Amino acid sequence: MFEYHKTLQYPVKIDHPNPKLASIIITQYGGPDGELGASLRYLSQRYSMPFDELKGLLTDIGTEELGHLEMIGAIVHQLTRNLKDSQIEDSAFAPYFVDHTTGVYPTSASGFPFSAASIAVTGDPLADLTEDLAAEQKARVTYDNILRLSDDPDVNDAIKFLREREIIHFQRFGEAADLLRRKLHQKNIYAVNPAIDL
Amino acid sequence: MFEYHKTLQYPVKIDHPNPKLASIIITQYGGPDGELGASLRYLSQRYSMPFDELKGLLTDIGTEELGHLEMIGAIVHQLTRNLKDSQIEDSAFAPYFVDHTTGVYPTSASGFPFSAASIAVTGDPLADLTEDLAAEQKARVTYDNILRLSDDPDVNDAIKFLREREIIHFQRFGEAADLLRRKLHQKNIYAVNPAIDL
Amino acid sequence: MFEYHKTLQYPVKIDHPNPKLASIIITQYGGPDGELGASLRYLSQRYSMPFDELKGLLTDIGTEELGHLEMIGAIVHQLTRNLKDSQIEDSAFAPYFVDHTTGVYPTSASGFPFSAASIAVTGDPLADLTEDLAAEQKARVTYDNILRLSDDPDVNDAIKFLREREIIHFQRFGEAADLLRRKLHQKNIYAVNPAIDL
Amino acid sequence: MFEYHKTLQYPVKIDHPNPKLASIIITQYGGPDGELGASLRYLSQRYSMPFDELKGLLTDIGTEELGHLEMIGAIVHQLTRNLKDSQIEDSAFAPYFVDHTTGVYPTSASGFPFSAASIAVTGDPLADLTEDLAAEQKARVTYDNILRLSDDPDVNDAIKFLREREIIHFQRFGEAADLLRRKLHQKNIYAVNPAIDL
Amino acid sequence: MFEYHKTLQYPVKIDHPNPKLASIIITQYGGPDGELGASLRYLSQRYSMPFDELKGLLTDIGTEELGHLEMIGAIVHQLTRNLKDSQIEDSAFAPYFVDHTTGVYPTSASGFPFSAASIAVTGDPLADLTEDLAAEQKARVTYDNILRLSDDPDVNDAIKFLREREIIHFQRFGEAADLLRRKLHQKNIYAVNPAIDL
Amino acid sequence: MFEYHKTLQYPVKIDHPNPKLASIIITQYGGPDGELGASLRYLSQRYSMPFDELKGLLTDIGTEELGHLEMIGAIVHQLTRNLKDSQIEDSAFAPYFVDHTTGVYPTSASGFPFSAASIAVTGDPLADLTEDLAAEQKARVTYDNILRLSDDPDVNDAIKFLREREIIHFQRFGEAADLLRRKLHQKNIYAVNPAIDL
Repeated sequence: MFEYHKTLQYPVKIDHPNPKLASIIITQYGGPDGELGASLRYLSQRYSMPFDELKGLLTDIGTEELGHLEMIGAIVHQLTRNLKDSQIEDSAFAPYFVDHTTGVYPTSASGFPFSAASIAVTGDPLADLTEDLAAEQKARVTYDNILRLSDDPDVNDAIKFLREREIIHFQRFGEAADLLRRKLHQKNIYAVNPAIDL
Repeated sequence: MFEYHKTLQYPVKIDHPNPKLASIIITQYGGPDGELGASLRYLSQRYSMPFDELKGLLTDIGTEELGHLEMIGAIVHQLTRNLKDSQIEDSAFAPYFVDHTTGVYPTSASGFPFSAASIAVTGDPLADLTEDLAAEQKARVTYDNILRLSDDPDVNDAIKFLREREIIHFQRFGEAADLLRRKLHQKNIYAVNPAIDL
Repeated sequence: MFEYHKTLQYPVKIDHPNPKLASIIITQYGGPDGELGASLRYLSQRYSMPFDELKGLLTDIGTEELGHLEMIGAIVHQLTRNLKDSQIEDSAFAPYFVDHTTGVYPTSASGFPFSAASIAVTGDPLADLTEDLAAEQKARVTYDNILRLSDDPDVNDAIKFLREREIIHFQRFGEAADLLRRKLHQKNIYAVNPAIDL
Repeated sequence: MFEYHKTLQYPVKIDHPNPKLASIIITQYGGPDGELGASLRYLSQRYSMPFDELKGLLTDIGTEELGHLEMIGAIVHQLTRNLKDSQIEDSAFAPYFVDHTTGVYPTSASGFPFSAASIAVTGDPLADLTEDLAAEQKARVTYDNILRLSDDPDVNDAIKFLREREIIHFQRFGEAADLLRRKLHQKNIYAVNPAIDL
Repeated sequence: MFEYHKTLQYPVKIDHPNPKLASIIITQYGGPDGELGASLRYLSQRYSMPFDELKGLLTDIGTEELGHLEMIGAIVHQLTRNLKDSQIEDSAFAPYFVDHTTGVYPTSASGFPFSAASIAVTGDPLADLTEDLAAEQKARVTYDNILRLSDDPDVNDAIKFLREREIIHFQRFGEAADLLRRKLHQKNIYAVNPAIDL
Repeated sequence: MFEYHKTLQYPVKIDHPNPKLASIIITQYGGPDGELGASLRYLSQRYSMPFDELKGLLTDIGTEELGHLEMIGAIVHQLTRNLKDSQIEDSAFAPYFVDHTTGVYPTSASGFPFSAASIAVTGDPLADLTEDLAAEQKARVTYDNILRLSDDPDVNDAIKFLREREIIHFQRFGEAADLLRRKLHQKNIYAVNPAIDL
């Protein structure tokens, strides 16, 4: 079970509303490579993951990503506070606004509601960890692209923190894949499941 | 941010594998009225909810539903442990198994991957709380139906606990809607938003 | 069965084309809280609704919403008549236009084709009526938001009529829920299904 | 606007519950080639259809298909009345039941909620009428397949009526396409839009 | 099986980047009436199509559409080469960019990922060929609309080629439907399947 | 562009119809980790992939996967030839049959139509290649699971060939990722994009 702590993992303090930027960043809330998908992927995969270290790693990172999801929600919320109607009308935020006002809804930037079709849980430890390596790379790219589109230093400070965490998670999943291969008595670097191949 | 505690909110101990039942119960993991949707709905709605009590209520219940999601995952996992291939082949579990083996994947019983299209975040406090009342009723019905389909006492013990929680959440959201109406100086019981109507 | 009458429920006469506004209002045609979803929800729920008054109410409101769907179609159509290509190119209407020209297609403002995942039919009368209360609140918010984004008095006249109807439907569903609770001999205001709980 | 008449277009009287068959026939309620899609397609296309005869045809057939949707709902409802729990548990109906009890929900037989992605409104009269010809053929095939899977004469009587109507609609859309080509001063039988090609 | 040849079916050479136009044309890559859907529809239908000429036709056109898909990919790619960040920020391309950078992803212009729900394979030869006639008309309309929105002669040259091919495919599918009707000993022009009707 | 050769990459000759098994194997046609997704992923990623060797690799494997898609289509087709109605009625194939007869339609085993939401094209070479490594692992697991569910030697012979190819593709994508890291002058084994991090 989970316990909530009222502080964000990393502070978010944004001074300037920017609904257009919010309509881009929402993709890390509910988009294909966002924090919801990340958290859900890891917290779901842990049931069938063998070895306590690996199960624990999935739980740890999955729980941390819940906190990242919260940070993205806070960024979107702060970017859309105190808007005037004219700021909405003229911006790319209007199609989002009509359905969600300034609430935080799990959707991609292009308006596709979050779908679990964008994550995989295969029940196979090697496939799941490789999926996770890909997930962290894809999340990193999305943060790269947000940084390319945003010039708000308040936003970028938080986004850089989140981006950095994805890189660290990528490394930890890489170590986990190595550990798994060793546990499975595999030598070759591009491992396949020995239970099936041998 | 969130902290993970290793114990389930309520214990799950299932002795008899039953992949067919697992393929039904998974709907409370990723189905239209399941725990993932519930948690995501409440944790997302809180950003735009006014009044600290109401924001806190959404956070509390949203966090508790994360723990319920974990319990459903545990039920599905325990119902599919140590299966023989013949148990899979002959059961309604096969279409799930081919894509997810015995991993826990967020899908409805009918195989539709979780979609945020089944939840709403409107940014309007009255609409969001009414959505939540509906959500709790729908989750309650799903648990009713699981109880109708299952005769495993181990499963039913946990399902009854979860069902009971939905009823309590329904009552708390009802009280929250009343509180909101009072705060908005509304008298009529079927409240509409005075900021817009008057 | 249904009979068609050639007049709209409320007249729609729009003088000024405005494709950008059309691309927002289309969400009440095929979006998550739009008239298609409303009509489909009520007309589907009536099969399993007990008590003739309640079945009749669902049929009445479901049929009326079909007429609202037609009104929204007429608004979108009139807002996109006689456009010049330059009016399309420069507007947020272009992504809609490339696939649908100026036809009326059931999609949300953000381009997600109508999905029945956004409506629920649970077969349980209390859950269904609570779902309907939420649906009316959500539709009301969407009309609020359209009014915030539009300054065309021709459009707003029709939108205000539609918004008013949602509020009346909300009240009627509230009365229906009360009636149902009485019929089920329930006293408590946040009713649960006695057939299951007692 | 629409007016509801309490009689079905063709009577449905089914004596024997059969949840398995219901789980197949539901596809004509909310599946890819079902009555909901048919009605929605035609009633949506009419806004941009030129020529009063053609607009009227779309309205007529679209309205009739609403009545067919109602008939399918009645069939599914009657096939699932008075079920015992054991009849549900053992049948392919269980994944539907857990989310919808015995309510009538717009989904395909395979459990995919109705999606407007399965219909097209192009705003081009020739493309729309060709889409409609295809729609009627596809609906006809689905009825063929239901007849192959059902041996209940009560069900088949109504299904045969519906199938016959699709064939008549196909013929009427064929005549409409011919009329359109003549109106567009086109001679060639595989017509293309002269406004664009010449 | 398929063999790849390094030349495009028709040359694509675009000098001027235009991310806004790319965000429209992508709809022929992964949108409802695009080349991916076309190719997938025909190559899938051929398994159940009787008569070698018809099976061969589906294979031929399906394979050609794969080449068209490649052309559309090349157009999108060339329209988004060497962009400056400012060109992305200010354009309708940003919601696409954040998730896909300048990669080519199968989505509609409105951001809905390609869904096979937009194509049909019915296993019935007449229904499938009628579906194909509709598909070609719808693709033709989409190309019409791209031509209305684009004034880049390099783009339009390739788009006109593709549009022309759809018209030819429409004619070939018309001939195929005629051939099928003759093979089925049918006289009436709006053919129905004699295996079922007689 | 593509050229079709009439022979399958590996022969498929299945003697015994088995619609239930077909309803499982279809997942490699249109399911989340199937051959359609694989082919589409690689053929789409190549536009933005730098370095000719890597672009060529994506083209080669993407083209080969088209041939695998064809093999899966042939397997499903041969498993559903010459069925009697009773073989359909009694099997898990019925929900598929009602919409597609015995045509080959791109869907998962659980009836979710193929969605591009299950593939990623990020425009970033490292993220795309990591996605591809995950894709091959996931496809391998699906073939593992088919082998667990099937005891038809004719089917298994072809499935084993396809499974073997996924393992080889995994190795080639591993080598490609190494090559890319070297080209980007990266030393660390869990590489991140130096263009952004340094």
